[in-house]
Amino acid sequence: MARSRADCLGLDLRDPLAEQRGAFALPDGVVYLDGNSLGALPKATMPRLRQLVENEWGRGLIGSWNDAGWIDAPRRVGAKVARLIGAADDEVICADSTSVNLFKALAAALRLQHAAAPECDVILSELGNFPTDHYIAQGITEMFGGRYNLLTVPGDEIAYHIDEGTAVLLLTHVNYRTGRMHDIEDLTHRAHLSGALTVWDLSHSAGAVPLDLARARADFAVGCGYKYLNGGPGAPAFVFAARRHLQAMHADRFAQPVAGWFGHRAPFDFSTEYEPAAGIDRFAAGTPSIIALAALECGVDSVLAAGVEPLRAKSLQLMQLFIDLVEQRCAGLGLQLLSPRDPSQRGSQVCYAHDDAWPVMQALVARGVVGDYRAGDAGAPGILRFGFAPLYVRFVDVWDAVEILRDTLAARSWDQPQFQARRVVT
Amino acid sequence: MARSRADCLGLDLRDPLAEQRGAFALPDGVVYLDGNSLGALPKATMPRLRQLVENEWGRGLIGSWNDAGWIDAPRRVGAKVARLIGAADDEVICADSTSVNLFKALAAALRLQHAAAPECDVILSELGNFPTDHYIAQGITEMFGGRYNLLTVPGDEIAYHIDEGTAVLLLTHVNYRTGRMHDIEDLTHRAHLSGALTVWDLSHSAGAVPLDLARARADFAVGCGYKYLNGGPGAPAFVFAARRHLQAMHADRFAQPVAGWFGHRAPFDFSTEYEPAAGIDRFAAGTPSIIALAALECGVDSVLAAGVEPLRAKSLQLMQLFIDLVEQRCAGLGLQLLSPRDPSQRGSQVCYAHDDAWPVMQALVARGVVGDYRAGDAGAPGILRFGFAPLYVRFVDVWDAVEILRDTLAARSWDQPQFQARRVVT
Repeated sequence: MARSRADCLGLDLRDPLAEQRGAFALPDGVVYLDGNSLGALPKATMPRLRQLVENEWGRGLIGSWNDAGWIDAPRRVGAKVARLIGAADDEVICADSTSVNLFKALAAALRLQHAAAPECDVILSELGNFPTDHYIAQGITEMFGGRYNLLTVPGDEIAYHIDEGTAVLLLTHVNYRTGRMHDIEDLTHRAHLSGALTVWDLSHSAGAVPLDLARARADFAVGCGYKYLNGGPGAPAFVFAARRHLQAMHADRFAQPVAGWFGHRAPFDFSTEYEPAAGIDRFAAGTPSIIALAALECGVDSVLAAGVEPLRAKSLQLMQLFIDLVEQRCAGLGLQLLSPRDPSQRGSQVCYAHDDAWPVMQALVARGVVGDYRAGDAGAPGILRFGFAPLYVRFVDVWDAVEILRDTLAARSWDQPQFQARRVVT
Repeated sequence: MARSRADCLGLDLRDPLAEQRGAFALPDGVVYLDGNSLGALPKATMPRLRQLVENEWGRGLIGSWNDAGWIDAPRRVGAKVARLIGAADDEVICADSTSVNLFKALAAALRLQHAAAPECDVILSELGNFPTDHYIAQGITEMFGGRYNLLTVPGDEIAYHIDEGTAVLLLTHVNYRTGRMHDIEDLTHRAHLSGALTVWDLSHSAGAVPLDLARARADFAVGCGYKYLNGGPGAPAFVFAARRHLQAMHADRFAQPVAGWFGHRAPFDFSTEYEPAAGIDRFAAGTPSIIALAALECGVDSVLAAGVEPLRAKSLQLMQLFIDLVEQRCAGLGLQLLSPRDPSQRGSQVCYAHDDAWPVMQALVARGVVGDYRAGDAGAPGILRFGFAPLYVRFVDVWDAVEILRDTLAARSWDQPQFQARRVVT
């Protein structure tokens, strides 16, 4: 283990991914440990946007839908995401937001189940899942007026609650607060044994954790474009549907309910009747933002250039170093590790509970160590959340973050009024 | 009327909106009559995107959600759109696509009606409405498994079909093929007399035609950001809900069904239960693309800088000149005016049927006159569609377009193989 800042600099020198950091525009003096909330800016993004806006839009105008391949962007970027999640290139499309894609995927899964096993009425999810996952499930149960029930149970009890009443298992792969990671393959297998389908939210894993949806026989999945995929603030999301379900939906003439024209078999026939595309295009809805998709494509390219396996290897090293250094250098300063110690059960973030987590994080940010705060469970302390985006986080960043964390806690420099003020977005 | 190109140049010199054209980056040698399909690029857009991407995202990173006001963008841009459509600034939000917003608005309208008059089961729309409007309605009727029926009737028969069975009247204000414009106030009034609610699609009118949703007592509306609002390819759309319905939804605890976290009362409380925001924010769903919203804001600003009333006045002049010149100079060349001759019944486009509309339009585009083609009704000839975005279309453009149209038709220069080839996007 690195015992000094110099050791960390040495690790960075030998890091096979070191040059990837050079592909990002990062501000000086910032240790950015919030790439799990908003990924950093690839240097390739701005030149691509300039080309798109000035040449393709400004000069090419409407013709660029054909001439510049705009019409193919949702599938083209989707096919690139597919390589990161172990899917076939015709099983993923980039469109809309994670929330909207969750709505489409969950509605489609319930529709398939309603045809196959109408008595299954439970949407099973995890207590403490990311809120939008709960909200979308609640919106769908409310919409169907009691046909479905949402059951949320603790993450480590999921397996025991999958039974013949389960219609859909709706889970986030990596928990947004703790970083705890589910076993997609195992839980999908258990769901299938009970006749349930799965909808996986990969927002906190795509681009940071190796995924093999094909091997796991996953059914549906969605994920976020603006975290580890570096697609920019509010980037379009992706949606995955296994080819067998696409075929079943096609054979049974099922559509997902947000039946916008970009999901039509032939949108530019302008026909009166909605005929969904045979494949994954049926999960598109309205006209996609081409500017946002171009930024997303640059971000996805930045991940593909490194490869997920090397990224995971470095992420595990970074996190182990962080945990070890915090244990050594911040002992007795009120931090409690919330993330699993076992790296195989952890995504790419490390979280600590602290009684004064909010002002501590604000004080860290003021010193250039950018993580974020999340509320703890009711009555429990708040959470300091540190994300490790291995594309651009260095070993020396880990060292510096821990030193500043130790200083901040030891000197109680967080205990100042300006660090108490709440902000709209946390 | 202008009788020569010189007359048209004179009109441009005296045009009070002439300087607005200077705010757009338009390619040389192009007469762009397709701003109703994709608006032109405002010169302000690229500098704004550079500032957003390089400074706010690249340097400000996650902090820009607060520090750069990203979190306010959907409401801020929505309030600007509100000024263009006669709505209050707390009745409009920019989010998602037109299709997704149609889904949300139609579902909300049906939910309100289901509570008030559950026996109303008809969604009434127009034959030949824009396809995505039909498709979304079909998706919703399919989702509710027979609770609703979609009835589409010819545009001039709408009023006769509004009755006590009508739940929602779903109409596009300006027809995308013919340019025919409905009377929002009259039809909304008739709908209300029968107990129906209205969902207006303003995609082909916002930014080109004065709208007064307050005076019309409109219920719900959506519209497109990438046509006359110049927001860029696939720009976010907007959604309007009258304050009285927002209040009713709040009082009755109704949500629109795509219950994503950005529609929550307090998204960053990360609470477990979906509690929709009291106001128009409840029509937000997932995290919005901040890059796409920034481009949209520049486009909306370009319209606000001119004002809708002057734009409408110029649009009517441009169209009248076009119609008159075509009549004079293209007589006997197979063009049949499809758009209403009465300007009060016409949006900002002029359409002609022609037996060879497809190759004619391709030949026009090859000569720099960019309109677009739309298929006619079954068995009827195809349509040459010319949009007049008065922000940047000049009188001399009208003259040149008609001259090139006349040449192309008279010389049959469209009758060449390269103009027959179909393209994906028409």
